[in-house]
Amino acid sequence: MDHLKETCLDSRRIYEGKILNLRCDRVLLPGGREATREVVEHPGAVTIVALDSEDNVYLVRQFRYPVGEVTLELPAGKLDCGEEAEACARRELAEEAGLKARSWRHLLNFYTTPGFSTEIMYLFLAQELSREEAEADADEFLEVEKVPLAEAVQMALEGKIRDAKSIVGILAAYLILRSGNKETCNAGR
Amino acid sequence: MDHLKETCLDSRRIYEGKILNLRCDRVLLPGGREATREVVEHPGAVTIVALDSEDNVYLVRQFRYPVGEVTLELPAGKLDCGEEAEACARRELAEEAGLKARSWRHLLNFYTTPGFSTEIMYLFLAQELSREEAEADADEFLEVEKVPLAEAVQMALEGKIRDAKSIVGILAAYLILRSGNKETCNAGR
Repeated sequence: MDHLKETCLDSRRIYEGKILNLRCDRVLLPGGREATREVVEHPGAVTIVALDSEDNVYLVRQFRYPVGEVTLELPAGKLDCGEEAEACARRELAEEAGLKARSWRHLLNFYTTPGFSTEIMYLFLAQELSREEAEADADEFLEVEKVPLAEAVQMALEGKIRDAKSIVGILAAYLILRSGNKETCNAGR
Repeated sequence: MDHLKETCLDSRRIYEGKILNLRCDRVLLPGGREATREVVEHPGAVTIVALDSEDNVYLVRQFRYPVGEVTLELPAGKLDCGEEAEACARRELAEEAGLKARSWRHLLNFYTTPGFSTEIMYLFLAQELSREEAEADADEFLEVEKVPLAEAVQMALEGKIRDAKSIVGILAAYLILRSGNKETCNAGR
């Protein structure tokens, strides 16, 4: 795939911030021309599909300042410096939803916006839940609710859950868990 | 939901770029404290699930500079200034995949990263395809391929298609189209 590759010629730091940095690179394109690439540097993040024994999934309602809306999302959060993804997922599930899980399964990694940011998202399925209150982030105001996973799928397909990581998490968990019960699923085909 | 809202106190422009701007706002939190919010301003974008008459979906292979990887994604692109989403989807499908479609259906809108950017993504299903070559973006080097939609679902669940908008588009289109054939689907339940 090297014939598609772009090579960095030089890099200009524009901003070093709290949750992101911005740089602007001059790159050499495969055809020999030059172009600029604006890159948002992000530490990476986790998203958790926390399912209780009755197949309800936990969601958090919060105000998202960049889009000016209250959204309903899966619990999620940024990696602290040097933090392992699963440790981050355990921490965020406690901080945001007041839960701990005995069973953890890594489902997927994905890029949220590979066209302009480095952010990678680690997606986990958490089961065998119990309460564990943890100190919430002082800057976060959240409300927790739970809905049946099948209902969350419908909410995602109808635009009621409308952020990419939550849609990915809910639809992927639903399809992966369903394919784990393939006997039932294929019975009618 | 006003009790969750954050209010802008002041805003500092940091960068005005080619595909994004960056600003840093000071906000008033619901509890009365102040915080900063870094906001990447993005014009919005479209993603297209282009399905041929045999249920193959078109994908584009390209180098994504921010993540340093060649990825396999749905055709997609940013809105030009003042451009309608469906017009943008028609343009991008021609530019990136060399296709036009007689049937267009708007499936969903979603936010790619509501924690730090304003980007909204408009997702379309395009069917009844025919060839239409259009001039490609001079900065883009792409390879087009097609795979059966059911195989694309597996590729998404196995991490072979690994950007959020493509996973959302493929899984959502699959589930929405399947629910349009509910009689078949529920027959075995």
